Amino acid sequence: MVFSSVNWVGDEDGFIELIDQRQLPGKFVKLRCRDVQSIGKAIQTLAVRGAPAIGVAAGYGLVLAIQNLPENGSLKSGLAKLKDAREYLGSLRPTAVNLSWALDKVYGCAEKFVIEQSQANLPLLQQCVLAEANAICQEDKEMCRRIGQNGQEFIKNDYGILTHCNAGALATAGQGTALSIMYEAKKAGKHFKVYVDETRPLLQGARLTAWELRQEGIDVIVICDNMAGWLMKQGRINAVITGADRIAANGDAANKIGTYSLSILANHHRIPFYIAAPTSTFDLTISSGPDIPIEQRSADEVQFVGDKRTVPEGVKVLNPAFDVTQAEFITAIITERGIIEKPDTGKIATHLH
Amino acid sequence: MVFSSVNWVGDEDGFIELIDQRQLPGKFVKLRCRDVQSIGKAIQTLAVRGAPAIGVAAGYGLVLAIQNLPENGSLKSGLAKLKDAREYLGSLRPTAVNLSWALDKVYGCAEKFVIEQSQANLPLLQQCVLAEANAICQEDKEMCRRIGQNGQEFIKNDYGILTHCNAGALATAGQGTALSIMYEAKKAGKHFKVYVDETRPLLQGARLTAWELRQEGIDVIVICDNMAGWLMKQGRINAVITGADRIAANGDAANKIGTYSLSILANHHRIPFYIAAPTSTFDLTISSGPDIPIEQRSADEVQFVGDKRTVPEGVKVLNPAFDVTQAEFITAIITERGIIEKPDTGKIATHLH
Repeated sequence: MVFSSVNWVGDEDGFIELIDQRQLPGKFVKLRCRDVQSIGKAIQTLAVRGAPAIGVAAGYGLVLAIQNLPENGSLKSGLAKLKDAREYLGSLRPTAVNLSWALDKVYGCAEKFVIEQSQANLPLLQQCVLAEANAICQEDKEMCRRIGQNGQEFIKNDYGILTHCNAGALATAGQGTALSIMYEAKKAGKHFKVYVDETRPLLQGARLTAWELRQEGIDVIVICDNMAGWLMKQGRINAVITGADRIAANGDAANKIGTYSLSILANHHRIPFYIAAPTSTFDLTISSGPDIPIEQRSADEVQFVGDKRTVPEGVKVLNPAFDVTQAEFITAIITERGIIEKPDTGKIATHLH
Repeated sequence: MVFSSVNWVGDEDGFIELIDQRQLPGKFVKLRCRDVQSIGKAIQTLAVRGAPAIGVAAGYGLVLAIQNLPENGSLKSGLAKLKDAREYLGSLRPTAVNLSWALDKVYGCAEKFVIEQSQANLPLLQQCVLAEANAICQEDKEMCRRIGQNGQEFIKNDYGILTHCNAGALATAGQGTALSIMYEAKKAGKHFKVYVDETRPLLQGARLTAWELRQEGIDVIVICDNMAGWLMKQGRINAVITGADRIAANGDAANKIGTYSLSILANHHRIPFYIAAPTSTFDLTISSGPDIPIEQRSADEVQFVGDKRTVPEGVKVLNPAFDVTQAEFITAIITERGIIEKPDTGKIATHLH
């Protein structure tokens, strides 16, 4: 990968460096976040997006939260800062579970450190938090590679693959989830085409997925979301591969709005439908899809394209950012640990054990 | 209806007045076409669009074709001009059959007039052509009203109706086809909501359908195309009603890209799927959907939104303007003559007889 969507630069007093994804593909701009508010704003406005990437970014957000405390400050004040930051960052995107997963992991580690280490002081806590955030980032990179290796068997020569939104390097700290499978298939010497739904309203497919697949030399064709079914009917799509933002215990998977429709269309045309996601995307506290919270985003995202109003003044719009695909329509879930075919509660419990 | 999308103003030496639909909903601008090239350009660039409306506009285009000939010119030269204009205008949009239907109707009438009327001269030919173009426009208005009356029984109180693209007053000379059903249901005192797919790439749903439904006081909610399946899953859609650009002898119906997917999604969710179209939309020379020509439009329409490039430079796109819904997924076709339930070749032949 020639770029990294989220990076920590420096030691405990460093900063988060992001690719500002709002500006792609027009401009490749790096964004530096030096405090919790600025990484929060970056998450909320989708400068950084994608379930694994926002997890990694939020982990580093906790490093920022305790960065400028006085060296002789109390551990209690440090933990309080971490707790506040965890709550604030965790509230920004309700659907992707990786966000709270990463925050809980870093915070839990800090709490344990304070309780268990009698020698603990603030500088050591800062080191501890950075080490844990780095570990999440490293794990994410490794997880991406493994998902790709595990899933690449599903791509055959001359396949047309359909993907939706961006589940690539821009959505993770590594080489992506769904797109990692394509990168590994290419590395294995396979020839194939990738059709990318542009993914309204924010066009992550057209702007981000097309951009990164092209960077990596993969044959990519952008379509409008409403063309996918017609391409399936014409036999041009051999497999659908998307990411996920949260997967319930029974395998129901929340992902970018439009994924549910693709699963029904793929099912109708007898095309396999794969979800690629790390095990951190599973939320076993939720038994099935209807309990996954769906983020409703601003009407502006639908009413305007850039500065241009496309929906008449005074007309209502809906803007659910995600939908939920039922497990029954998922051919397999591909994780860093392997493949869950025809996912259900039992198989998922075994896989995660 | 408080506006008319296509109008003839004046006598034989008059002009075509269009609402420039490229500028809606931002600006309501009238466009005057005084020669064949300018109405051709208006059709090609979608200043006027919608299968019935481009039929009406093209009929008036033939009036323009013989408007400035010398009064004592030969009938032969008049017919030659008409023939050229028929060929040129007929080539501009390959999918909608109403275009060639209207051109053939007006040209056929002119030819018959020249052959049968011994007193014929150029001014009389001009009158004849205008009269026939006016007749098509009048028929279209009447046809719209009847489609609405025939179809309004399918809308019940508190329904959520989904429509795609624009099959309204802006797509016809009258009050539309699919939307006419909504106008008549409202006139009958029913309360219902209309969900409108924004309809990428040119956003006719967001820009045009939302605009005209709002003008008429109907409760309208715009969604992105990829949200439709999710709304169906949630039970918010009770019926889908769209227009059509060409219907084959067996009932397979070409309509705006995305319609095919909606038919599959509606079928999966057991939601009735209706097509509203005048009998002039049927093309009995085509036995089934795969033979309907599908217009491929410019890549720019997908690559740019307004002036803003959304697809990276050098990335390919597809832009089929239409797709074909199989008759098996159509609950009923609603025409000005009545209802064809579960359409097939036999029922359609009987209906058109």
